[in-house]
Amino acid sequence: MVGLPARGKSYITKKVARYLNWLQHDTEIFNVGRRRRIAAGAPDNFAPTPKPATAASLLKLSTTSFSSPPGNNPKRTDPNISDIAGGLNQSAAFFDPANKAAAELREKVALETLDELLEYVLHRGSIGILDATNSTRGRRQAIIDRVREVAGKELGVLFLESECHDQQLLEANMRLKLSGPDYKGQDPVKALEDFKQRVAIYEKNYVTLGDFEEKAGIQFIKMIDVGRKVVAHQVKGFLGAQTVYFLLNFNLAHRQIWITRHGESLDNVAGKIGGDASLSEEGKKYARALASFMEHQRRVFRERQLQKHDESSHMPPRPGDITPPNPEYSKGDSIDDDGRPVEKNFCVWTSMLQRSVATAQFFDDEEYDIKEMRMLNELSAGVAEGLTYAEIKSSWPDQYALRRADKLHYRYPGAGGESYLDVINRLRTVIVEVERMTDHVLLIGHRVVARVLLAYFLGLDRNDVAKLDVPLGRLYGLEPKPYGTQFNSYQYNSETEWFDQIPNSQLTNEEGLVVKVNN
Amino acid sequence: MVGLPARGKSYITKKVARYLNWLQHDTEIFNVGRRRRIAAGAPDNFAPTPKPATAASLLKLSTTSFSSPPGNNPKRTDPNISDIAGGLNQSAAFFDPANKAAAELREKVALETLDELLEYVLHRGSIGILDATNSTRGRRQAIIDRVREVAGKELGVLFLESECHDQQLLEANMRLKLSGPDYKGQDPVKALEDFKQRVAIYEKNYVTLGDFEEKAGIQFIKMIDVGRKVVAHQVKGFLGAQTVYFLLNFNLAHRQIWITRHGESLDNVAGKIGGDASLSEEGKKYARALASFMEHQRRVFRERQLQKHDESSHMPPRPGDITPPNPEYSKGDSIDDDGRPVEKNFCVWTSMLQRSVATAQFFDDEEYDIKEMRMLNELSAGVAEGLTYAEIKSSWPDQYALRRADKLHYRYPGAGGESYLDVINRLRTVIVEVERMTDHVLLIGHRVVARVLLAYFLGLDRNDVAKLDVPLGRLYGLEPKPYGTQFNSYQYNSETEWFDQIPNSQLTNEEGLVVKVNN
Repeated sequence: MVGLPARGKSYITKKVARYLNWLQHDTEIFNVGRRRRIAAGAPDNFAPTPKPATAASLLKLSTTSFSSPPGNNPKRTDPNISDIAGGLNQSAAFFDPANKAAAELREKVALETLDELLEYVLHRGSIGILDATNSTRGRRQAIIDRVREVAGKELGVLFLESECHDQQLLEANMRLKLSGPDYKGQDPVKALEDFKQRVAIYEKNYVTLGDFEEKAGIQFIKMIDVGRKVVAHQVKGFLGAQTVYFLLNFNLAHRQIWITRHGESLDNVAGKIGGDASLSEEGKKYARALASFMEHQRRVFRERQLQKHDESSHMPPRPGDITPPNPEYSKGDSIDDDGRPVEKNFCVWTSMLQRSVATAQFFDDEEYDIKEMRMLNELSAGVAEGLTYAEIKSSWPDQYALRRADKLHYRYPGAGGESYLDVINRLRTVIVEVERMTDHVLLIGHRVVARVLLAYFLGLDRNDVAKLDVPLGRLYGLEPKPYGTQFNSYQYNSETEWFDQIPNSQLTNEEGLVVKVNN
Repeated sequence: MVGLPARGKSYITKKVARYLNWLQHDTEIFNVGRRRRIAAGAPDNFAPTPKPATAASLLKLSTTSFSSPPGNNPKRTDPNISDIAGGLNQSAAFFDPANKAAAELREKVALETLDELLEYVLHRGSIGILDATNSTRGRRQAIIDRVREVAGKELGVLFLESECHDQQLLEANMRLKLSGPDYKGQDPVKALEDFKQRVAIYEKNYVTLGDFEEKAGIQFIKMIDVGRKVVAHQVKGFLGAQTVYFLLNFNLAHRQIWITRHGESLDNVAGKIGGDASLSEEGKKYARALASFMEHQRRVFRERQLQKHDESSHMPPRPGDITPPNPEYSKGDSIDDDGRPVEKNFCVWTSMLQRSVATAQFFDDEEYDIKEMRMLNELSAGVAEGLTYAEIKSSWPDQYALRRADKLHYRYPGAGGESYLDVINRLRTVIVEVERMTDHVLLIGHRVVARVLLAYFLGLDRNDVAKLDVPLGRLYGLEPKPYGTQFNSYQYNSETEWFDQIPNSQLTNEEGLVVKVNN
């Protein structure tokens, strides 16, 4: 990554990593800022999973880093960490290049983080993202040199820069920083001042990607104002092309994404898998309730949208004010003649199977944009279509066992038989389309389809996807936010013919255990 | 389109139009240069289909064009065409802005061509491409104004600029112009000089897309050195996103694309459709011959590649020299330490059905990169899988009749049943991947898959796709060239166990009629 602080780098890295991981390319983010805070002795409250990265382990790693060549005793040159950084307080002074000891520490941490990344990519993963400012040509050259030294010619390096020219977007990003790890709990006005100083220090030495990299034939992508403008230079490989394609279809629009399965089908009643059955009476009731509930939710969203628009928070913040404003109101939303956001379209997408199409039958097609998509069809069970699990077990005990051993990779035999990976591959188009558009959308899928969609939006771990509990009647409501995806779960109640919100909205697996989300 | 002459605009437009048409979005190119030549009285040898665009029809159209408002008698202000243009000879003098009458004629032709485009987009098609230099801000503003005036707010305008900074690429493009409609048959040295003068005239007034368009929020794409660098600004809609994605995956590499069906299967022998049968003995013989023939063709290509590299033609051309050089040798090919092109990888992609996988069994996997892809599977016949056409006709006479009436749109009933349009949709990923890579590739598909692939590469008319004759044992060899796709057909000869080249390589439909290609 390349870019000044508060340019949305971490937001972009998280989202790209989530997408690539979902496509089954192991991706990990190596955040230099987090490591800097640890090195400087701050508690790492923001680490998603606590890692054993202590000062001691940093010293150990540094013996193999290019900042201190092997044989040079790292202890001798290592600055005393807490002296420089002043404990918890990493104020702007820490980022001043005149503060030599701090600069050395920052350099060291950056390069050690790169070594950690290389170790990951070479031995365990496919893609490592170095999340840091990397704002000088020198630093970027040092990265390339180190990669070539450790990994040779074969490992591709792609720089991804985020620039913000849009003041409103920039201010929203800065506001977000005030509630982040460096400033949490501090007075917002003072914190903002300090943060702006820090950015100003970086800005002095900042060199954007451009002619130099073009002449050197270096691969890069520039994102300007999150999706307004994208520049792709020499992006060649499959993963690079996938990343540009994903970044091109990016927006910050404030909207809702709903996911559910079709209503109960006659095959569900009979316990058969696959097939193309129609809805049971219970399934039809679900379809009717779903249309009313979506209508209700759409109205609630609209009211909230108008209210938030009218009271959107201010920049600079007032003392005690820590809510980030929503840049999306001006970026992703169309504005009417009174300057208020226009009401959003609402898309309802079903598969091409009867039970899914029929679940959308009570939506008013004047108010909702209803579409059938083959990509949303259920995983095809090949030869096992239309059978019960008991029948499969008795007819093909070997296949049954193979599937249980590795549901994610198992592919049903017979023409058209699919695995979860096949389903991921065809849902890629749906995901990119949902990311591209700014409308609300309800996806009426099937068990496997819903699992795979949730795996993307909530960043599920690979091993959890195929075991996720997604019962009939469950409805998931997602809202993309600057800090991740917010979500709620609801369960259809056949007595009230309405939906009950599930407290805490935890996802569980089929054994009832809580599934970790990385949203 | 925006860009100086010889920047590959027409090449890009043709390729984009072919892709969008293949995706079933009606697209037509409106070439201002061609119209200018007609207006100036030159014979239009280069029109793919002769159109009734005579001076008289231009005059008629001009009464509705914004260059001469209605009520103003166009005959009065119209310059005498042949006086200005000097008949056939559209030399650089014609493009000098000081030549007022010629400038007026050029302006008039450009805007009339836009009107023709708008008439098409509003009444018949989806996308019109205005292929012209549009190199001044004034001209581009005039285009936007006219579009808004005629079509209102709803019609999207996207500028696509092609820039060449690479001298080698530029010279190759210029060479290509010398054999084009303006200079055909002229002395190449003089022609090149004239052409360079013409470009210099445009260059004086040329304003590239940039800050002005960014501030105005205008959608644009810039392609620099055909795929080296791509800039996308405010590209929002589905078609725009598709276009950028396609342009991002673009190269001029010199390589071969081979298409065939699997060898004969046991179901082919029994006359059944669909299914997942294995190869017959005859099918295995085909598989063996295919591997040998590809090995042979690969060697021939390699020899030709090295020979052409050594004798590649010069710039400026020698008198009488009209062969364009191949810029792809430096662009798309890797060069070894002796400066010679590296031998290319050769990919063999099959579907996931047995008969396709088995057809690749004799390829040496040390020398060929072999992959199975679900996207290459045959069109799924849903309920009719495994039946003969006679059985379908007797069991579902209505379905049989529906399919015969419109094969392209007909979708087989039953879970998973597909139409040609469904197949196009899933082959999109394959096409973009083939365009992205620079390797040779052999695609071993099925009848419908081969038809749809050929429809893309050879730009078949929509109505011809589903009727194309693609017998077992037919092999198509395609080579992308700067002026289109060159292709050869071969037929397997079971006696010689080798392939016979089909003279003229015409495609025919199932009734034996020749099918038009737009390659």
